Amino acid sequence: MPVIGIDDGGFEKGVDKTAILVAVLIKDLSIHAVRFNQIQVDGLDATEKAIQLLEGLNFEAIMLAGVSFAGFNIIDPTVLLNVFGKPTIIVSKRKPNNKAVKRALFRHFKDWRIRWSVFEKLGEVHRFSISGKNYLYFEVLGLDFKEAIELIKSLTIIGRCPEPVRVAKLIAHDLYRRMK
Amino acid sequence: MPVIGIDDGGFEKGVDKTAILVAVLIKDLSIHAVRFNQIQVDGLDATEKAIQLLEGLNFEAIMLAGVSFAGFNIIDPTVLLNVFGKPTIIVSKRKPNNKAVKRALFRHFKDWRIRWSVFEKLGEVHRFSISGKNYLYFEVLGLDFKEAIELIKSLTIIGRCPEPVRVAKLIAHDLYRRMK
Repeated sequence: MPVIGIDDGGFEKGVDKTAILVAVLIKDLSIHAVRFNQIQVDGLDATEKAIQLLEGLNFEAIMLAGVSFAGFNIIDPTVLLNVFGKPTIIVSKRKPNNKAVKRALFRHFKDWRIRWSVFEKLGEVHRFSISGKNYLYFEVLGLDFKEAIELIKSLTIIGRCPEPVRVAKLIAHDLYRRMK
Repeated sequence: MPVIGIDDGGFEKGVDKTAILVAVLIKDLSIHAVRFNQIQVDGLDATEKAIQLLEGLNFEAIMLAGVSFAGFNIIDPTVLLNVFGKPTIIVSKRKPNNKAVKRALFRHFKDWRIRWSVFEKLGEVHRFSISGKNYLYFEVLGLDFKEAIELIKSLTIIGRCPEPVRVAKLIAHDLYRRMK
């Protein structure tokens, strides 16, 4: 099943105005396409840019490495679900701490309500581990919990990150490092 | 066995002064690292930049998508073999036409002898096909012909390009497309 993974490169606080957004298409555990875009640090364009990245690609599900990219530029997974009609899974190695997110948004953004509204729409946080430790945390839209686990399991071969997210992360980080 | 693949992105003739050079590290058919660099169109820096890309990576062989990158910027595989002590395989979907290369070099470059000397050092052109058609052509340094075939076979799962070169090509081309 062809699955998209999305992650961002890094950025230097107070210096970089944009960061890289990378989408990869993984099918049968192999990479079949890569797309690159740039998003504004702490901007509001990540959802739109993610949609541009995915246009023209054939896929059956999307995996996001979180919902905040390039600081607090948020990809709204409900919009992706509406536009593409494919289930979206938000994965993270760390347990999401939405209270801390809300506090940070409130402190730093006048438009914090817009950004926070995305977090509010996310469902329950699940966790999953093949080994019984090193959990992968995830939220899922458009798919039930068990199906999401099966999908994650089928795509996890190195560490705890499913291939689409692992590969997107790797490319985004190495590209960022090179551009410094 | 961890194997490097190297390919370049495209460039617009007479417009772009540089092109992207990408190295990927493939192990167990999965991507483990990506490195990016830029080389001059028709320049003489590709060998040096390739060495920079590979420093710090652990690998047992190198696969190059040809020897000419960004026009006629040539990676000298004998230098890679000397620096890293690992076998190097030059692969191509099309049968190398060294006569045409020599003619083009002679016509367009005062320093054509420097560039041509790399082609002269390449060994015999072999070809290989899993399916009996759609040959992959290759030259090999530091490994015998049969071992090279085994390595190519073990890394070919999609089309006729071994994974290191297929993935390097894919990333370089998509990144180039995005940057236009």
